[in-house]
Amino acid sequence: MSEPVRVIGLVLKHRDPRILAIVAEIVSWLQARAVQVFVDESSAQQYTGSCAVLPAREFASRVDLVAVFGGDGTFLYGARLVGGSGVPILGVNLGSLGFLTEVKLEEMYAVFTSCLSGQYQIEERMLLEIEVLREEKQLSRYLALNDAVINKGALARMIEFEAIVNSQLVTVMRADGLIISTPTGSTAYSLSAGGPILYPTLGAVIITPICPHTLTNRPVVVPDDAVVEVLLRHGQDVMLTVDGQIGSPLETRDRLKIRKAGQSLRIVQPKGGKFFGLLREKLKWG
Amino acid sequence: MSEPVRVIGLVLKHRDPRILAIVAEIVSWLQARAVQVFVDESSAQQYTGSCAVLPAREFASRVDLVAVFGGDGTFLYGARLVGGSGVPILGVNLGSLGFLTEVKLEEMYAVFTSCLSGQYQIEERMLLEIEVLREEKQLSRYLALNDAVINKGALARMIEFEAIVNSQLVTVMRADGLIISTPTGSTAYSLSAGGPILYPTLGAVIITPICPHTLTNRPVVVPDDAVVEVLLRHGQDVMLTVDGQIGSPLETRDRLKIRKAGQSLRIVQPKGGKFFGLLREKLKWG
Amino acid sequence: MSEPVRVIGLVLKHRDPRILAIVAEIVSWLQARAVQVFVDESSAQQYTGSCAVLPAREFASRVDLVAVFGGDGTFLYGARLVGGSGVPILGVNLGSLGFLTEVKLEEMYAVFTSCLSGQYQIEERMLLEIEVLREEKQLSRYLALNDAVINKGALARMIEFEAIVNSQLVTVMRADGLIISTPTGSTAYSLSAGGPILYPTLGAVIITPICPHTLTNRPVVVPDDAVVEVLLRHGQDVMLTVDGQIGSPLETRDRLKIRKAGQSLRIVQPKGGKFFGLLREKLKWG
Amino acid sequence: MSEPVRVIGLVLKHRDPRILAIVAEIVSWLQARAVQVFVDESSAQQYTGSCAVLPAREFASRVDLVAVFGGDGTFLYGARLVGGSGVPILGVNLGSLGFLTEVKLEEMYAVFTSCLSGQYQIEERMLLEIEVLREEKQLSRYLALNDAVINKGALARMIEFEAIVNSQLVTVMRADGLIISTPTGSTAYSLSAGGPILYPTLGAVIITPICPHTLTNRPVVVPDDAVVEVLLRHGQDVMLTVDGQIGSPLETRDRLKIRKAGQSLRIVQPKGGKFFGLLREKLKWG
Repeated sequence: MSEPVRVIGLVLKHRDPRILAIVAEIVSWLQARAVQVFVDESSAQQYTGSCAVLPAREFASRVDLVAVFGGDGTFLYGARLVGGSGVPILGVNLGSLGFLTEVKLEEMYAVFTSCLSGQYQIEERMLLEIEVLREEKQLSRYLALNDAVINKGALARMIEFEAIVNSQLVTVMRADGLIISTPTGSTAYSLSAGGPILYPTLGAVIITPICPHTLTNRPVVVPDDAVVEVLLRHGQDVMLTVDGQIGSPLETRDRLKIRKAGQSLRIVQPKGGKFFGLLREKLKWG
Repeated sequence: MSEPVRVIGLVLKHRDPRILAIVAEIVSWLQARAVQVFVDESSAQQYTGSCAVLPAREFASRVDLVAVFGGDGTFLYGARLVGGSGVPILGVNLGSLGFLTEVKLEEMYAVFTSCLSGQYQIEERMLLEIEVLREEKQLSRYLALNDAVINKGALARMIEFEAIVNSQLVTVMRADGLIISTPTGSTAYSLSAGGPILYPTLGAVIITPICPHTLTNRPVVVPDDAVVEVLLRHGQDVMLTVDGQIGSPLETRDRLKIRKAGQSLRIVQPKGGKFFGLLREKLKWG
Repeated sequence: MSEPVRVIGLVLKHRDPRILAIVAEIVSWLQARAVQVFVDESSAQQYTGSCAVLPAREFASRVDLVAVFGGDGTFLYGARLVGGSGVPILGVNLGSLGFLTEVKLEEMYAVFTSCLSGQYQIEERMLLEIEVLREEKQLSRYLALNDAVINKGALARMIEFEAIVNSQLVTVMRADGLIISTPTGSTAYSLSAGGPILYPTLGAVIITPICPHTLTNRPVVVPDDAVVEVLLRHGQDVMLTVDGQIGSPLETRDRLKIRKAGQSLRIVQPKGGKFFGLLREKLKWG
Repeated sequence: MSEPVRVIGLVLKHRDPRILAIVAEIVSWLQARAVQVFVDESSAQQYTGSCAVLPAREFASRVDLVAVFGGDGTFLYGARLVGGSGVPILGVNLGSLGFLTEVKLEEMYAVFTSCLSGQYQIEERMLLEIEVLREEKQLSRYLALNDAVINKGALARMIEFEAIVNSQLVTVMRADGLIISTPTGSTAYSLSAGGPILYPTLGAVIITPICPHTLTNRPVVVPDDAVVEVLLRHGQDVMLTVDGQIGSPLETRDRLKIRKAGQSLRIVQPKGGKFFGLLREKLKWG
């Protein structure tokens, strides 16, 4: 169904004492099956064993599959290494189920067995491409699996910005910040800020204000072919954060241009259609 | 761009004293331009003038355009007369802007002029098809422009139902009710119940619980090719209401099957892309 | 600390098969300790054993303590029997913790032992007094432990009413309904409708709209010496419901007058200060 | 009814071009009536005219009344100058009504006339006292009219803290932050974060989480004799902000102790009981 996996790159949660034993065992198991295993540079503090270490910039181009061991934060880091390369990614949780790290330790060997034989399903998840423009020049560019967040600093007062969709003004908003989220990110920060849950394969982007001054500034969902822009009008200490991981400071008059990326992230989905089961478990709908 | 309009059917707000003068004038104007004007049967109490009255079942098949004078409630009634016939519909408000009745009185003559010459734009809006099944037999079938609402009676306690998407259980919910809404309906009842705003042309359906017992039962947005089912487990005095207008009582074990209808509603859109302007005005985002 | 309990009146959950064995055992235990046990008339279908049955109107005046076995719904029924009589009430849950039925089966004997010796704590909970006025004449009068709810019927459209506090207009509101809640009721229906959680002994009343048309109509908390009035302007099929149990139909121009009752409900509180623990457990804050 | 006012201290909005003319006129008017007028040091950039300038630390002790010209932000600054001194404070808005600056320019002369003759009403508003404790030693102490806010930095991830009321754990929370608000502050930041509106004279404190990870962490309202503590468990770049104006960085294990201050703020209330009118106007309930 897919290509058999011969080279795997590991991404490991930091500072988790369980990692060492779990990873040592699966690496032995993989190597016994002639799979070459690399470890991501920033994960090498947690474990290397007999595996070679790969720097971030080479990582995606050298492996057939990225395997993440950890929580959703670690998965988002792994997704950043994968970027738009199209290499599939697989998330194994260390005990507590994540929205992105669905595979349990006890299911791990069965899942890797499927991967080695190419018998696995892929779910494509939309990525957002975020450009930061200063005086209409590109300052930086990011890919996001979950969200791009514009946020004020802790001491700062609220910020003021224009939200624009397809060159049309949505509104001028005063708020603590704004979240531009994919369907995948709808169960992360956007949900805490009052956003709706989107089915993962829906072709849509959510614009969720954080503590807006105007109470009727509710989350807006637009089609994924829309170009969302945010123009910062006022605000001190304003930061752009991508997937809760990397960020860059924004200045007044900076403009963000956010649209669906050309590539999507390809997530190994060992058991199809579990989204609602995940919601029931994670949100305690039981 | 479209077919020139030669026959217009009028749908009029009930019990509004302004209607008579406004409609008399536009009817003269239309008839002077050789347009045949009919009045919908239930609107005939408000005005007939020299117009023939058409019963509801013939209405859509006899006219080139349905023109609604009134608020969003009157428009929803007009949309019901149009059903899946494909006849375009135009909404003129009597003073207070509606989400559906965007044309102002002072713009009315210009808009009708465009219609007569076929120079008008159409925006297609998704309709939902709702089937009520009792013991797996179809009891009734409706089309909705805004929403299908399952609701408990005033004295009744909360109801319990299963929400199902594409044959997979979303969750068993206890709530006052549930709203299944189109993007068009996202600014109506669903918004009051905490739902997000959807861009009108997004291919999606919102499932919004009304006062759910479990606080984490947040609105869920699914693709418009999904089949949403609601199975009523318990509840007295439970009603299905379609577009806030028509309804039918539901019994325990009744099942609703809701999906995108084969036809959409074709709304005459005199000024394209005003959605965010409408939001700013109606939600006082200014 | 309190009066020793010599006569107990039982209120029992309906249609719960566990009731019979549990109650038979505790009744034997109580009678062996020379406690006289009565059963409430409407509970007599569940169990009577050797206990005399008391009609609702005599119930509170004949017992030293009302003991409820069931969930919060059963407790609210028991509270209605107690009314403003000042007789203490105790709630034993049958397995799933309630906000009002805090005592677990395994703690039951210890708690009753305390009651028999008068070694128990009482927590006073505010009751609301609700008057229904038609043409300024009192039509009916209720006491509420949780809330008074004005609600539209399932098929009806939204209702319009004036909310008035201390003779001053709060606002004219269009909504599905309105909840006037005590702090005790803040974790019940009001919470589902978006209201805040109030500490049980706070001297305050919450006014929570249900699905208001105007999104900024947020819950308002007023001091418990305020008189809250609701004047129904329009609405069909409108009902007043008290504690989710009893109700009466309202007509246009009916007026509700709601204030703190002269008496409070005296709840036996075996373990003081568990409110936040209850919240953590019931709302799954863990 | 109160003491006639002979000495007035002015607090002026920064960078507002309208200030100069308005203040020059009222100062002439006051001086013509033998009122001594001082200007607060930080307002002296906007205007001094013939008025002496007072440093912040002397301000409250030298005047009979503090008159603020500006918006709610300027009023909060004025309230900080007043602190717990008991000097009354009056807010004049420059065109757009504030929750705290209720007096309009056209009403100003009538209100000052009342003040000069002592014919004015005072509304007492609760202040919060906030202590920052590090290793159980007091690091700093603040008074707040609106709120104390614990907030994460823009780039930081969510923070984790314990909320404690009267030495009992409410819950361990992960969130962007937490707002501890007075009733006065209930219409400010807490409202944007989902908190309820409290009547200004209610004896209560609101604990409102900002974007909590656990969706059921809803705002909690406790009596104003409660001691609210917040213990910071984890978090980088965490700040305490008081009334949106001053702040201090917090470190892991720092503890905030928040309770009703011994003194309240005395606000000149020219027209009693306008709270709901203010709400209708500010929240566009019309």
